[in-house]
Amino acid sequence: MSDAEKKDSARLEAFSDGVFAIVITLLALDLKPELTDAAHDARTLLWQLASRWPTYLAFVVSFSSVLIMWVDHHGLFKFMRRVDTRVLFANGLLMMLTTLVPFTTTLLAAHAMEPSGTVAGVVYSGLFVLINVAYNLLWNALRRQAYPEAGSHRAALERRLTWHYRIGFPVYLAATLIALWSLPVSLAMSVGMWVWWSANMRPVHDAD
Amino acid sequence: MSDAEKKDSARLEAFSDGVFAIVITLLALDLKPELTDAAHDARTLLWQLASRWPTYLAFVVSFSSVLIMWVDHHGLFKFMRRVDTRVLFANGLLMMLTTLVPFTTTLLAAHAMEPSGTVAGVVYSGLFVLINVAYNLLWNALRRQAYPEAGSHRAALERRLTWHYRIGFPVYLAATLIALWSLPVSLAMSVGMWVWWSANMRPVHDAD
Amino acid sequence: MSDAEKKDSARLEAFSDGVFAIVITLLALDLKPELTDAAHDARTLLWQLASRWPTYLAFVVSFSSVLIMWVDHHGLFKFMRRVDTRVLFANGLLMMLTTLVPFTTTLLAAHAMEPSGTVAGVVYSGLFVLINVAYNLLWNALRRQAYPEAGSHRAALERRLTWHYRIGFPVYLAATLIALWSLPVSLAMSVGMWVWWSANMRPVHDAD
Amino acid sequence: MSDAEKKDSARLEAFSDGVFAIVITLLALDLKPELTDAAHDARTLLWQLASRWPTYLAFVVSFSSVLIMWVDHHGLFKFMRRVDTRVLFANGLLMMLTTLVPFTTTLLAAHAMEPSGTVAGVVYSGLFVLINVAYNLLWNALRRQAYPEAGSHRAALERRLTWHYRIGFPVYLAATLIALWSLPVSLAMSVGMWVWWSANMRPVHDAD
Repeated sequence: MSDAEKKDSARLEAFSDGVFAIVITLLALDLKPELTDAAHDARTLLWQLASRWPTYLAFVVSFSSVLIMWVDHHGLFKFMRRVDTRVLFANGLLMMLTTLVPFTTTLLAAHAMEPSGTVAGVVYSGLFVLINVAYNLLWNALRRQAYPEAGSHRAALERRLTWHYRIGFPVYLAATLIALWSLPVSLAMSVGMWVWWSANMRPVHDAD
Repeated sequence: MSDAEKKDSARLEAFSDGVFAIVITLLALDLKPELTDAAHDARTLLWQLASRWPTYLAFVVSFSSVLIMWVDHHGLFKFMRRVDTRVLFANGLLMMLTTLVPFTTTLLAAHAMEPSGTVAGVVYSGLFVLINVAYNLLWNALRRQAYPEAGSHRAALERRLTWHYRIGFPVYLAATLIALWSLPVSLAMSVGMWVWWSANMRPVHDAD
Repeated sequence: MSDAEKKDSARLEAFSDGVFAIVITLLALDLKPELTDAAHDARTLLWQLASRWPTYLAFVVSFSSVLIMWVDHHGLFKFMRRVDTRVLFANGLLMMLTTLVPFTTTLLAAHAMEPSGTVAGVVYSGLFVLINVAYNLLWNALRRQAYPEAGSHRAALERRLTWHYRIGFPVYLAATLIALWSLPVSLAMSVGMWVWWSANMRPVHDAD
Repeated sequence: MSDAEKKDSARLEAFSDGVFAIVITLLALDLKPELTDAAHDARTLLWQLASRWPTYLAFVVSFSSVLIMWVDHHGLFKFMRRVDTRVLFANGLLMMLTTLVPFTTTLLAAHAMEPSGTVAGVVYSGLFVLINVAYNLLWNALRRQAYPEAGSHRAALERRLTWHYRIGFPVYLAATLIALWSLPVSLAMSVGMWVWWSANMRPVHDAD
């Protein structure tokens, strides 16, 4: 990359890192208990804090998902040769969807224990279907910039990444449909997807 | 640019990218439904979520506008030779107006379906008139730093950009006045402006 | 500066720029009207928006102050030779005080038109006294890192900056005391200080 | 470090700096008084502001803790040779725990003067136990990347840092248990820990 291209890429990364950092921090805002009905004795406060466990669980799950999205974004950008219009807009769509994670997380935490949990679960997993589409668009935009020599290490790595992103679509779609039937199974599928991705990102991070 | 000038420019960009990233993330804060009247059954929640469609539409429209503003800012700064006082203050004015977008968006979403929608629409489009003025001031400040040779590729590009920013003023002004009569037509004009800009930014991004 | 020192300085700047960018964006959060009592007809909304003018004025005044603080911070760091513990903590104190500006701004806007405006005005201007102390501490920490040759251009510039920061203390202190008697006069003094500083920052920004 | 490794490390730092900057700024959001019960006369406002002293104290204590965490993070990353998966996830855990500081701070400020203060104090100090564990994990991940020659200055520095992080665990654990008995003693222990760390960070910052 030329110096100007490096600067372009650096600004796009800085902007994206800013969005990821803010989204990940906003997730914690939901944890704050309503202070209007603050407990005055220790036992009541302990009970109030304990009863909010779905909020804590939703926080940990969503934080992990955004962290893995950031790590993945980080890995993807190693394949960028230049910032073109296609990359800018695919990344913009990804950022828009990412800023929605705190919203779907709040929704999930508030409804998880109610009959309305099915709707919240569909919205929560449905957002990851859309995020997966955005990642696939971004990855396609990056891949189009250059084609590695057939049979090279890079070509193998790119095929592996393509598969890595494509597999997410059916898994999240299934998780979205399963949320209608069982929220825990649906969430377990998404978490399983992230664990599998985390375990499989190493070759991308070692690439240069 | 010297090393010190590059660092100057990098800090101004980092600060601006920070503001853009925060503004774009804050837009999503409005989507959170009031949890005090949380629905307990699936059908009611679905209905509650569906009935908030003006908020979602306003989010998508405002997100797109801030994203295009960021992309444009990114393009503009390629023409910067040094950070002078004029650039600092034109950019500061632009940042101030940009931080107002979440406010006008909330206003628009809350009033879009009411008779008060005309006022909200005028405020919403009126802010873009002011933002356009700030972009023109910033672009003038950047252009003043050096004059390209007449007839050069750069001179042609600069004329094109000048026109690109100037056209926004009458369009947004018209959109502001039209909001008094029809909010959908007014918003369509702004969205049309952004689509046209997005389609016309390519030569700027390819410039070096 | 060595490469490691440049990186150190870059991280301190990135962290500070982040804080400034967030503070400046949070200022706008206060502008959002309470949606619970949203007006339904155009005239009422217009009136509601117009009646909140102290909030808009406070926003513009505080935004300008934080912007000038950022520009000044930007100028100061040109004199940094290395990030030492003294610089880290002086900058930390400055950041802590800076994050308080949205709080004092909300307080000022809410009370400006009430008899309680005197207290809000004292708190608002009093924070700038403390911020000025932090700037003087930071500037002293930076100056201690090296002493320019007597009679050099740099020595003259440093003396000028020292005076530039020291003058703020008595002006803000006077503004704080005057707030007890007249809020508009007190605010006018702070705004006057910023205009004067803005007009006098040019030699610092041109320095290298 | 190669250029690609430097860029990797720069993105991880930028992301972490973003999180620290946002967390530190969000701490101040709690200071905003409820405007619904805004006082109209000066004496009442003064009294309202004064009565919120536990909130101010909690703000200063938490701000200092996050600032020292940032400074420490800054020091730690000087020892990084490359961004590997282990570093990414240890840092991710640290970021997750850091975003919880505003939550525990709000809790502490709201309950400090009530019998429920013991629970709030245990949660507040307990988070620092977890944060200390995350720092130890991150430091171990960084240390594993290379082993300095035995007897070298670097080996001595690393041993010192290892001790520096390990000592935090028993101190915070003791502070957590002591919160059940006396909140002021518990907080004083944490503050003492930070003062001691601040005084002992100098050799790390001078290292290269």
